[in-house]
This record gives sequence, structure tokens and C-alpha cells, in this order.
Amino acid sequence: MTNDTRPTIADVARRAGVSKGLVSFALNGRAGVAAETRDRILAVAADMGFSPSLRARSLSVGRAFACGLVIGRSPDVIAADPFFPSFIAGVEDEFSISGQVLVLAAATPGRHEEDTYRGLVADRRVDGVILSDLRADDPRIALVAELGIAAVTLGVPDVASPFTSVSVDDGAGIRLAVDHLADLGHTDIAHVAGPAGMLHGRSRADAFERAAAARGIRSRVVATDFSAADGARATDALLDADIPPTAIVYSNDNMAIAGLGRAQRRGLIVPRDLSLTGFDDAEIGRHLFPALTSVATDARGWGAAAARALLAATTGAPAEARMLPDPRLIVRASTAAPRAGTQTA
Amino acid sequence: MTNDTRPTIADVARRAGVSKGLVSFALNGRAGVAAETRDRILAVAADMGFSPSLRARSLSVGRAFACGLVIGRSPDVIAADPFFPSFIAGVEDEFSISGQVLVLAAATPGRHEEDTYRGLVADRRVDGVILSDLRADDPRIALVAELGIAAVTLGVPDVASPFTSVSVDDGAGIRLAVDHLADLGHTDIAHVAGPAGMLHGRSRADAFERAAAARGIRSRVVATDFSAADGARATDALLDADIPPTAIVYSNDNMAIAGLGRAQRRGLIVPRDLSLTGFDDAEIGRHLFPALTSVATDARGWGAAAARALLAATTGAPAEARMLPDPRLIVRASTAAPRAGTQTA
Repeated sequence: MTNDTRPTIADVARRAGVSKGLVSFALNGRAGVAAETRDRILAVAADMGFSPSLRARSLSVGRAFACGLVIGRSPDVIAADPFFPSFIAGVEDEFSISGQVLVLAAATPGRHEEDTYRGLVADRRVDGVILSDLRADDPRIALVAELGIAAVTLGVPDVASPFTSVSVDDGAGIRLAVDHLADLGHTDIAHVAGPAGMLHGRSRADAFERAAAARGIRSRVVATDFSAADGARATDALLDADIPPTAIVYSNDNMAIAGLGRAQRRGLIVPRDLSLTGFDDAEIGRHLFPALTSVATDARGWGAAAARALLAATTGAPAEARMLPDPRLIVRASTAAPRAGTQTA
Repeated sequence: MTNDTRPTIADVARRAGVSKGLVSFALNGRAGVAAETRDRILAVAADMGFSPSLRARSLSVGRAFACGLVIGRSPDVIAADPFFPSFIAGVEDEFSISGQVLVLAAATPGRHEEDTYRGLVADRRVDGVILSDLRADDPRIALVAELGIAAVTLGVPDVASPFTSVSVDDGAGIRLAVDHLADLGHTDIAHVAGPAGMLHGRSRADAFERAAAARGIRSRVVATDFSAADGARATDALLDADIPPTAIVYSNDNMAIAGLGRAQRRGLIVPRDLSLTGFDDAEIGRHLFPALTSVATDARGWGAAAARALLAATTGAPAEARMLPDPRLIVRASTAAPRAGTQTA
């Protein structure tokens, strides 16, 4: 389809010394590029004889009335991480009213993922995409900008982005959990974290370290892949220590539920012997015994907000950084004061 | 779009005295219609001047390389029922290899649902659809047959259907659970069932009654909406009885997990005081304490099988009734012999 001798957006970016995303941003006239940068990019593009591809232009005519969500992890994640079903339900809350549909695809990061995005655009399946699970230096930002479709990111990328971001301050939620446990008298708290390569896993772990330091708490962090099985393993590792923590802050509910089961299997009484907090406030956590104290981020509301922001973006609304309300800590029965004498100071 | 004076598939069906599905089946030349029935339908159609709509014919030319799943319950279900995420993961296992995408929509049964299906076809978004959560006398069979696209049904409908069905014998799974409990010595077992209006909820409840009768067991059935909250309520109602059951067979894992929490909150020790079985074998059940005994139906494998069957149907494979391997009972720690003396014979 593409004539190889015609300059691409990547050529313009290289010549102008900016990112591909910024070139797309400038070419589409979106707010947020300094005027002189924009003028320079447009001058370089004109000089090189660059014109947006026919495909990108044809897309601006017809609308697919569909948005895409490419889950950049294995299909396992859809089944095992309660965030996605709740988030997708929120998107459907919005789309079932507006008549849009959600195009869902699972793709492993790398070539396969890039081909999936290119295919969605080439086949004119979607007007825009939701970028979830942002990664460090995420290559999807430039890719989607180059493809010339609308997008929203869940969270703020660590690279320049021309897209609206819809974010929740995860760190605020983790701080609430740490402060709650510190207020109860815990002085030795562990964090079962997600993978460091995912921005939200990293930001929760960073927030944990800062909140623990601010309260003068002995802290340790164990990284996982976010799965229940890995949460169980991390819990065992922590409880096998000579002086185990008296409380564990988990980076998602699935791991916290598995950790609760593991602690109980070892004969510990939760919360008397060990306090646990989750993150997500998945519905099933309310029904456990003891019911799970968890950080509620309203994944479903997030899905609806992302869907609304994406619909706005597909009709030309300027990019913006939207923050959802801060997470709340839902205190239930899995947290209590530590037993006297469990802690050597 | 439709010229009202032109005969529709419904007109042909009425005149021929058969279902709309059967007409579509005959017109598309699929296997499974008796030759003389087919000839009669084609004669009636020719006599009335019926021709498939332009839309249906244009669809046979271009392919969307996409399949649809319209979840005919509120978006809640996507978030709360672990079957759907696992099933969708299985579909993606297959589609991520074949390059297809899944178009997902939530629609409430009735006008909204019908419009959603019509929209998917009118916009040429999908080559076929997966029909899940079959209902009694399900109107979607005739609707999709009329729309002229491929489909697979999860389970066998109770109306004539021209589509491939991909089924699991739920009843076999329920029988395994009842037999396991009967073998342990339980003589008073309850079933927390799904809604009677859903075929799989009903077939599980019917199988429970038959298996209990076959083993001479005192049985009771409580209907729910399949939600964890309703599972908790049903559990309380059963345990409030003068002579509560010594075991409960749940129609899904979510309700079993909520029931476990409810029993533990009441001070019961599971399985000593009460045995529980789930249905689905959701991953989190393995990590609970006690780990949940559950009927494993391999929702993910079901998703992959349905995706494969639908791909075959979109390329003209004849309809067939496929059975997946029978469910297995995964015995874990939530079932044991009843305490001596808990039961008056």
C-alpha cells in the first residue's frame, strides 16, 4: 500500500528531531505543541513533500462507530484480572447508549501488537483506541499517533503524548492503605507489587515506599506478575521470613484474595495475626470471610469515563489530562491492630 | 431499507408452516433439513418471489474478519461472572492467531438487543456471532437466521436452529458433584441455582433434581440471578432452616465463594459443618481457604472451540452439534463427610 519512496511520518520526525507523536500532533493541529515547534515541523514536512497517507485521510471521512481495546498481555489476563471485565463493563455502559461497539483484541507486545493496531486501522474497524497497561517508554503512543486515529491513555505516559489521558491517582490509594495500617499501629508492612515494567505497577510500588518512609515504617516490596498464583507465592515468601510483616498491602485484589487464603492455610487468623489490603475493590472481596479491606478505584467508572473521552476525541475534541476522583479506602474486616508483642521494635 | 411489499423470510416461513430459522437454513443449503422439507420451502419461496435481501447477499462477498458477541444481560455480568472473561480469553486465544477480532456489545434483551444485532450486520462489522446464555424459546435464533450471517450457539437451543452448537453437558458436571457428596455420606443437599429463564441455569437445576432423586437424597433448590450477592442471600436462607442441608451445590463459583464467606461468618467450619461445591473452576477458587471443590467446564477451551466453529461456519461449513468433553469435578478441600449426628434420617 505504502510507496516506499514517499517520506513517512518517521522521516519527518527524524529530520525535525522530534518524536513521531509530536509530528502527528502538529499535523493534526491539536493544542499542546508550542507554536514555534509546530511551525518548524510543518516546514520540515512541507520541505520533504510529506502528506498524510490516503488511508489516514479516508478515515477522516467515514466513521466506524467503534473503538478498540488491544490488551497487550496474554489472553490470560482477561480471565484472571478483575480490572478488565469491570473496565469493559464501564465502556459498555457508555457504548450501549451511544450505539458504539467495542472491538477487543489480545496481542502480545512487539510485532504482533503493532500488526494488530495497524490492522484495526487499515480495515477501518475503529475510530479510536484505548491504551491500557501503559509501559515504560511505551511504543504504542508513537504508533497510534502515526496511524492517525484518536486514542485515550489510561494514566499519563512517561513519553510525550498527543492523546487525552484519563487517570486515577493510584498512589493516593496506596497512601490511604499505608496510613490506615500505620494508624492501627503497624510498623512493619510489606507490599506485594505488580511488574516494574508497567507504569501502574511501578507507581503503586513507588507510592508505597514513599508513604512507608513518611510514617517511619519498616517496608519491603516483592514484585510479581499480578497473578493470583504469584500473589500466593509472594505471601509465602514474606511469611517465611524470620520476622514476618504484620500487614501486607497488595497491588490488586486477586493477589490479596490468594494471600488471604495462603495465610489462613498456614493457620493465621486474619486480621488478628496479619492484616491485608487489596486494590480494585472487586465485588467478590466483599463476600469473603473476613471481607477484604481494599482500595476502590471504580474500574467501571473509569471505563465509562475513558469511553466518553474517546468519543469526544473522535469528534475532534482537544487532548486534555483528565483526573478521576481519588480512590477511596473501603475498610472492611481484613485489617486490625497488630497483636501486642508480634513486633520487635 | 426493506421494501415492505417484498416478501420477507417471515412471510415464507408462515406460508410454509415452518420457523424462520428453518427457512434460512434451507435457503443457505445447509445440511440438516430433510430433503422434502427443503424442497417445499424453496418452492414456497420461489412461488412468493422471495429473494434474500441485498444486504445479505453483499455480505457473502466481503468478509469482516470479525465475530460478534452480544452479551444479552446488563454490563454487570461482564464484570461479575467469571465465565465471560474466561470465555472471551478463549476466543482471543483463537482469534489472535487467525487475525480475527471480537466485537463485543452489551444489550438488554428486547428491542435494544435486536437493534444491536441488526446494526452489527447492517454495518458489516461481523461475519458471524456467538449466541451465549440461551433463553427459553430464544428469539435470537430466528433473528440471526433472518439476518443471514453465521452463528454458533453455546448449548443446544430449545427451538429449531440452523446453526452449529458447541455444548458442554452441564448436567454431567452437576451429577458428579451430587455423587461425590452422596458418596461422602450426605443425605440432605441443596442447590443454589441460576435463573430458570436461562437454559443452562435450568438444565443444571434439572440435573440436580434427577441426580438427587437417583441417590435418594433430600433436595431443595433456591433460584438466584447468578450474582454473588444473591448466592450469599440464598445461602443464608438455607442455613436459617430448622434442619439446614449438610452440603450445597452451587450453579457457579461466584455464588459458591460468597456462600463460603457467609458460612464462615456464621461460625461454621467448612467442610466440617458444611460442604460446598462450585461450578466453573475459576482460578481464584484454588487459592481460597479451604480451596473450592468445583465442576471444571473449561470456559476458556469452550471459547476457543466456539471461535473455531464460528470461523468454520463463516466459510460455509455445514451446521453440526459439537459436544465438548464432559466436565470434571475437581475435588479440593471444601467437601468432606458430614459430621456424625448432624443429620436426622
